Amino acid sequence: MSAQATDAPVYVIGHKHPDTDSVCSAIAYAYLRQALGDTRVRPARAGDLNAETGWVLQRFGLPAPERLESAAGRQLILVDHNETAQALDDIRHASVLEVWEHHRIGDLDIPRPIVFHCEPVGATATLIAEQFLLNDVPFSPAIAGGLLAAILSDTLALSSPTTAEKDRQMVRRLAIAAGVDATLVGAELLAARGDLAARSVADLVDSDFKEFDFAGHRVGIAQVEALDVSSLVARRLEALAELARVRERRGLELVLLLVTDIGRKGSHVWSAGDHQAVVDHALGCSAGEDEAWVAGCMSRKKQVVPALEEAFAAL
Amino acid sequence: MSAQATDAPVYVIGHKHPDTDSVCSAIAYAYLRQALGDTRVRPARAGDLNAETGWVLQRFGLPAPERLESAAGRQLILVDHNETAQALDDIRHASVLEVWEHHRIGDLDIPRPIVFHCEPVGATATLIAEQFLLNDVPFSPAIAGGLLAAILSDTLALSSPTTAEKDRQMVRRLAIAAGVDATLVGAELLAARGDLAARSVADLVDSDFKEFDFAGHRVGIAQVEALDVSSLVARRLEALAELARVRERRGLELVLLLVTDIGRKGSHVWSAGDHQAVVDHALGCSAGEDEAWVAGCMSRKKQVVPALEEAFAAL
Repeated sequence: MSAQATDAPVYVIGHKHPDTDSVCSAIAYAYLRQALGDTRVRPARAGDLNAETGWVLQRFGLPAPERLESAAGRQLILVDHNETAQALDDIRHASVLEVWEHHRIGDLDIPRPIVFHCEPVGATATLIAEQFLLNDVPFSPAIAGGLLAAILSDTLALSSPTTAEKDRQMVRRLAIAAGVDATLVGAELLAARGDLAARSVADLVDSDFKEFDFAGHRVGIAQVEALDVSSLVARRLEALAELARVRERRGLELVLLLVTDIGRKGSHVWSAGDHQAVVDHALGCSAGEDEAWVAGCMSRKKQVVPALEEAFAAL
Repeated sequence: MSAQATDAPVYVIGHKHPDTDSVCSAIAYAYLRQALGDTRVRPARAGDLNAETGWVLQRFGLPAPERLESAAGRQLILVDHNETAQALDDIRHASVLEVWEHHRIGDLDIPRPIVFHCEPVGATATLIAEQFLLNDVPFSPAIAGGLLAAILSDTLALSSPTTAEKDRQMVRRLAIAAGVDATLVGAELLAARGDLAARSVADLVDSDFKEFDFAGHRVGIAQVEALDVSSLVARRLEALAELARVRERRGLELVLLLVTDIGRKGSHVWSAGDHQAVVDHALGCSAGEDEAWVAGCMSRKKQVVPALEEAFAAL
């Protein structure tokens, strides 16, 4: 019956490939806990910032959270993830105090009862913003801006099928608190992702890459979302070669890339590795063919992951 | 990408050895969802009612929930548990839509993001009552009485170390809404558990029995909580023989019985099976000896389970 450290810092941290939701949710939740008097709590991140998140932090004057290389021996509050494959490698040697989440329930083993809140909304930031309201803590304009950007980022400016009514309500509130126009911020944010044509295929695959364990099969799924994906579609063979390299390097059975066309509302699904027939069957596509287009498929979390989980479980 | 049944009933259900918290949380949450317009939702239970819960339902005029024998193909909202070992045997063939919980995070595999709310409070009923407040749904006196009894039951009338400030606040609110004296209900409720002397050892071991998987080791932990445990302490050898029978019948490696003395604030820890040295080391007792007393040990969930989880993981 071990004692809990009481003065040691508590880090709020997102997943290993930090996106705007992971980073801004960590910043905002640490701010909330500090406002409630818990001065131990501070924001952190588990990897490099991407171009979009860098733009968001600068736009709203938020400092980048400290980067943690290791979780061992630390007290953590996890935001925007709860699967060990997406956390710092030594997460099993950390003490996880809370989880705030909008993905599937993962494999993290937590022996004690803790605050663990998951809800199928478009962004973790929506749940963090709700905690400000429930605890009567006012948003600073910078925090409101960060949370707003996080929701717009994860929901592709409220166009993704993952978008919940609660996300929309929160966007209205946060835009007022931040003193900005949400539509404008959404457009600027998607533009800040940068021109796909200017980025290497390796960078595109790496920037939003998540690993999963589907009934014992280790699968990586990368996603690129943009208003215009034509420059990447033109580099399909180069992308397939990169997927094969990533698969080899990470020791995965299968690697997928979802190239999500926000305007056309669907994704190209490209893959390298074993079980491609499983993917085709689960998603209703032909991942081996040139087009490999799945109309309506926008969400890795709500559409692709559940379908693959089910398909691999039935193998 | 399978579709969800929309008109089929949704059952709110607790664990296999229903206690007052499991049963009253299921009744109240179904009531809340119906009040919010979701007429598919109804309460259920996964086993026989115990004497205390029978008394509570009669006291507040609440009907016993329907008993489910199977989870297969059903849509479920789980309350007061999230481990497969404590759910209906075929839980993996059910569709779990939500979880409301105050125990450790278990091994349930849920491929889709769902509402999953866990908080380290004394009773699930506290979290359900909070949802009435957050959704502006008034308590009926009967529902308030059931939720009040559930909190008093799980926290041993607010005396257990699991009791949180939120439990105390909710007890005050619910007592007013039910029009009763909480102290009196607490005393009547503990009395309704019945005289230990009048109950068989087999009945006592069975009435609050939970199975756990600790790093691959299957362990059963029964608990008896009473103001006066002397009549059970006098039957220790009979109880040890029953633990050995239960272990054999359920195919477990180890079975523990916590005989919790509410007045003296501690538990006798008796065990049958392998790894008794692990138990002694983890809990700081000598489970093989006559007394086997652990002062301050009142909670299976917050004290015994985390200590054993840690000890078995280190084997």
